[in-house]
Amino acid sequence: MSVMQASPAAREKIAHPAASALDLATIMRTVGDPLRLDIVRLLADDRPRPCSEVSAAMGLPVSTCSYHLRLLREVGVTRTRAEGTQRFISLRRDDLEDRFPGLIEVLTH
Amino acid sequence: MSVMQASPAAREKIAHPAASALDLATIMRTVGDPLRLDIVRLLADDRPRPCSEVSAAMGLPVSTCSYHLRLLREVGVTRTRAEGTQRFISLRRDDLEDRFPGLIEVLTH
Repeated sequence: MSVMQASPAAREKIAHPAASALDLATIMRTVGDPLRLDIVRLLADDRPRPCSEVSAAMGLPVSTCSYHLRLLREVGVTRTRAEGTQRFISLRRDDLEDRFPGLIEVLTH
Repeated sequence: MSVMQASPAAREKIAHPAASALDLATIMRTVGDPLRLDIVRLLADDRPRPCSEVSAAMGLPVSTCSYHLRLLREVGVTRTRAEGTQRFISLRRDDLEDRFPGLIEVLTH
């Protein structure tokens, strides 16, 4: 595919680990932070939220929230989808449930 | 109770947090270590094991293993019971299941 044909989605590259690469210990360590655990719980309703909304709900500066959201994305807990200038964040519920059944329920109980 | 009447169990004091004090984020962070996660999985059959047996199964020096076992005990994942000169370690399955249903299953799946 030539560069000219790259779709907006391809140009706006946001890295996510493959579902097969998710590691339980790494995920546990990452969500084992009270703030990140709260973010996971906020996202448990599966409504994709812009970063700004997550920040507001957490009462955090956007930069701080972005940092934590990046960690959650990098270990495979969340998915970030670019839409225009906004980024929408949601839980990777299907992948997590497939790899670690019951994990999301434990985290968001 | 006078010191003279102290039972062996009372003299051999091993601290464990109350079930009500267990914190999910703290537990997640602590088991989010590959080695400690392996120890939890080893203990999943609920057979209390002396520290030496856990060390041997993990292929670790006793001192290293003791360190990790202490961390697991301090956050409430395991219970240590003194019997003579030995200490037997087991999962706190009932307390964990009561506070965080499904957690042990997720960890030991």
